[in-house]
Amino acid sequence: MSDHSEAPVAPVQAFEPPYYVAVFTALRTQDQSDYSETNARMEELVNDIPGYLGMDHAQTPGGLGITVGYFRDADALTQWRTNAEHRSAQKRGRADWYESYTLHVAKVERSHGFVRA
Amino acid sequence: MSDHSEAPVAPVQAFEPPYYVAVFTALRTQDQSDYSETNARMEELVNDIPGYLGMDHAQTPGGLGITVGYFRDADALTQWRTNAEHRSAQKRGRADWYESYTLHVAKVERSHGFVRA
Repeated sequence: MSDHSEAPVAPVQAFEPPYYVAVFTALRTQDQSDYSETNARMEELVNDIPGYLGMDHAQTPGGLGITVGYFRDADALTQWRTNAEHRSAQKRGRADWYESYTLHVAKVERSHGFVRA
Repeated sequence: MSDHSEAPVAPVQAFEPPYYVAVFTALRTQDQSDYSETNARMEELVNDIPGYLGMDHAQTPGGLGITVGYFRDADALTQWRTNAEHRSAQKRGRADWYESYTLHVAKVERSHGFVRA
């Protein structure tokens, strides 16, 4: 859920399947008060989850944002989903920050990557 | 793989699991000649695949792009993966358009959505 748009960052690599992706697609409201601070805190928290592998984020200006979290197994995802601070942030998100969102939780069956030589 | 950044678009809804997501995360090169035309053609083609459910796209300016395609089953994905024009476009992508990319293909186990009342 990073909002950073500094230097280009490389996409998170392909891991050895199986692993899990949490795909969060969202359209935000005009009211983004406290969003950045909460987002930074969530990044800290998720980094502490054993089995958390990384995150990709892209944000079309004035449009859709997509965050993809990568997790080694279902247990890592459960830990993140049930984290108390995370749940509180989700509640605030529905109250203030998001116009609409969808979450898709999926088990990766295959993956591959490409990096220019 | 849309490049459009017009009006805000709502995220694709949650479907009834199981279904598949193809998560494509990419960093582009400076050379984007023919990209838009090819991308538009790919959108036409994928729409013709039985079992294609939709697509989300977000692009951080100068940074990461994420495209998520939704498919009803593995067969729909196979049809898309093996489409001759699509394969040709992928080859061109590796030759010219992408600095790096990762593809994660995953089976959705649960999903939910939120839309502001």
